[in-house]
Amino acid sequence: MSVEEPSPRTPPLTQPLSPPGGALRRLRSRAPLVQNITNFVAMNPAANILLAVGASPAMVHAREEAGEFAAIADALTINIGTLSPAWLEGMLVAAEAAVDHSKPWVLDPVAAGATTLRRQAASQLLELAPTLVRGNASEVLALGGAADNGSTAGRGVDAADPVAAAEYAAVSLAQRQGCVVAVTGEIDFITDGRRAAHVANGHALMPQVTALGCALTGVCGAFLAVTDDAFEATVAALAYYGLAGERAARGADGPGSFMLCFIDALAGLSADAVDKDARIAPATLPSAPAEGGADADLEVRAP
Amino acid sequence: MSVEEPSPRTPPLTQPLSPPGGALRRLRSRAPLVQNITNFVAMNPAANILLAVGASPAMVHAREEAGEFAAIADALTINIGTLSPAWLEGMLVAAEAAVDHSKPWVLDPVAAGATTLRRQAASQLLELAPTLVRGNASEVLALGGAADNGSTAGRGVDAADPVAAAEYAAVSLAQRQGCVVAVTGEIDFITDGRRAAHVANGHALMPQVTALGCALTGVCGAFLAVTDDAFEATVAALAYYGLAGERAARGADGPGSFMLCFIDALAGLSADAVDKDARIAPATLPSAPAEGGADADLEVRAP
Amino acid sequence: MSVEEPSPRTPPLTQPLSPPGGALRRLRSRAPLVQNITNFVAMNPAANILLAVGASPAMVHAREEAGEFAAIADALTINIGTLSPAWLEGMLVAAEAAVDHSKPWVLDPVAAGATTLRRQAASQLLELAPTLVRGNASEVLALGGAADNGSTAGRGVDAADPVAAAEYAAVSLAQRQGCVVAVTGEIDFITDGRRAAHVANGHALMPQVTALGCALTGVCGAFLAVTDDAFEATVAALAYYGLAGERAARGADGPGSFMLCFIDALAGLSADAVDKDARIAPATLPSAPAEGGADADLEVRAP
Repeated sequence: MSVEEPSPRTPPLTQPLSPPGGALRRLRSRAPLVQNITNFVAMNPAANILLAVGASPAMVHAREEAGEFAAIADALTINIGTLSPAWLEGMLVAAEAAVDHSKPWVLDPVAAGATTLRRQAASQLLELAPTLVRGNASEVLALGGAADNGSTAGRGVDAADPVAAAEYAAVSLAQRQGCVVAVTGEIDFITDGRRAAHVANGHALMPQVTALGCALTGVCGAFLAVTDDAFEATVAALAYYGLAGERAARGADGPGSFMLCFIDALAGLSADAVDKDARIAPATLPSAPAEGGADADLEVRAP
Repeated sequence: MSVEEPSPRTPPLTQPLSPPGGALRRLRSRAPLVQNITNFVAMNPAANILLAVGASPAMVHAREEAGEFAAIADALTINIGTLSPAWLEGMLVAAEAAVDHSKPWVLDPVAAGATTLRRQAASQLLELAPTLVRGNASEVLALGGAADNGSTAGRGVDAADPVAAAEYAAVSLAQRQGCVVAVTGEIDFITDGRRAAHVANGHALMPQVTALGCALTGVCGAFLAVTDDAFEATVAALAYYGLAGERAARGADGPGSFMLCFIDALAGLSADAVDKDARIAPATLPSAPAEGGADADLEVRAP
Repeated sequence: MSVEEPSPRTPPLTQPLSPPGGALRRLRSRAPLVQNITNFVAMNPAANILLAVGASPAMVHAREEAGEFAAIADALTINIGTLSPAWLEGMLVAAEAAVDHSKPWVLDPVAAGATTLRRQAASQLLELAPTLVRGNASEVLALGGAADNGSTAGRGVDAADPVAAAEYAAVSLAQRQGCVVAVTGEIDFITDGRRAAHVANGHALMPQVTALGCALTGVCGAFLAVTDDAFEATVAALAYYGLAGERAARGADGPGSFMLCFIDALAGLSADAVDKDARIAPATLPSAPAEGGADADLEVRAP
């Protein structure tokens, strides 16, 4: 997983991205088997959302079978939301098997900086070469710190300016680990350390429903399973997901009805509509922030 | 649990089945306490569905209390969806207690053939004399193999023709274990080794919602708790469940809205409507398939 | 946690309660971080309901981090629904940390009398000075017995007259433990051992949806986090919650649609509407029941 390490000031590649609907078409025709080791809150919505997207979800976590299963799955996703040492063992075994069998895998480092257990778990998992790290700004900032010095970069925090504050950390992390990093929030930022993009699809009701971020991790896994370029796969997944949120909001009276409209929208959204309404823009790789600047307005963030 | 072993070619018993609405009436008047040891995806919908049906659900899994609770419950259901060795211990203790106290219990062998852990767990649980085994075609095929030789019959598979391919295996399993076996799919097949029936109720949206099969296992437990004839109880449960799916589909715009319409339909469906619209037909016991025929088009199936 | 112990016949304090909308306004402006160690059935709805209410939910249960997290959370809630010894360890660690850091914590003793494991767990947790105990009548009766003699008061039971039968036990428990006790049911009863109130808001569909009681425990934690008077906080939480249930029922066709309407109603209900439509009445402290009277019509109740 070594990677060319350009300066953070390298301009973005000018080659245009593939239209995002193509990945969705492949996903629906292939129905990839996606193994998810996720938290107890997200188990049900993640499975339902993966089914609505067109993938085949499998929740297999035990150390005794997680690796054996990763070998037959098309992608693996790991979310540390309701972490415990026993589950971490299964996560490590599964990630190793995914790497051994060249299966893409996604790390969702929920509240990575909040406790010692989480910092250590995120650090250990990061060593196992995830294809994609998807988190919010504070989680990516915490991972950046963990990767730098093996210790803490915070305690599960949300930046006041969630995504922009973590863009530099995301690029650094992507370059250091040789992976794609996606910082999700009002406007998502995706980078593989050389290229970067913003995705502006989404709706304000999405963070009011629990586990939509965790389920998005699963959806990213499904897109990675059918797309060779992990950067493009992630951009497509985020645009599609956000666009489904926009559609869902039209029929919703609040977060309860939004959830069901969202699942219906994921199932009903055509690849053509995704190509037409995706709001994807290339982004320049950010320069290093001023000392301490990114930490100006941190708040506690919950797992 | 010894059982008369007729030839698979024995014609079906000609005695007509009781109307399925009777079991639903008893269930609603008695509100049986159904203990479920199920997976993390199904926990919530299984409990909500059992409440909608009219039963009283209880999720009690720990080795330290699962047996004590099985002694006071009216039925037990065990689903190995998100299996781990610790949970398997609770399952074994609970199943033993159910048998000791003559309570009906249902085995749902999710992805029974997918991993070594699952094959062994299914095999151990099958030894504890379940009243009913409910699975899809590939799971029943896998269990058939496990019962024959204690090893594997596959690795979590779905037959291209899901139900028909497993009918012979279902009858063999029912005869060998002295239990009822239900193979669910587009047209369900139920047998106790002497009698067999098809149930044609259901809707194409049902497999697009996660855990509806797992929750059906709980519903079967509730019907078994109030019906002496386990074959009739299972046929009634499947017809009612499928019919609620048909009703729910009328108001649904996709899998998200379907789920809530389905729970409303389960709660609202009258026993008279079930008697009127159930599509139950007696089936002949199938003869042995040609060598290797059932395995012609297997695909990986997710837990 | 010592408390003045008046005779159960002490008349209620005549000082009027604060309007309940005030607590809701504070909650929405502060978005308290509420750590929940709850059961697998309630994980998802509890998180969604806390988000709809305006709090920030966190599900953190492992012994290795539950205490560390309780120190940074604004409140802690513990529900023993799908109990196991490993989870009990995390509960005990978290409750100790909450007390050490003067954070309010709520105990929800699901089916406290049903099994030996539950009786012992409830007893151990009760020793750790919960701010509030919220349960149904049978659970409060079981806890009353556990506190009296360290042993059993039943086996997970529902009184035929659920709330009234447990009012005396609630007052005794509140006085003995120096906590608030809320017995929820058709008409809720809340007491801190000196004051008592009834809350009449609610709807018959609420007990037909699983985990609404468990999620209410989380909501009580959120109200406690922003209100100094734990008795008033609890009364306000119960009135608001019940009123949202009344609103939700207007748009529901059954328990499935009720659930989403309920989440929408929690998010949409204004503090002014809560002040206007809350049905809160002061209650007299009940006198001791006739011997054996409370146990007249007990039924098994499920975790």
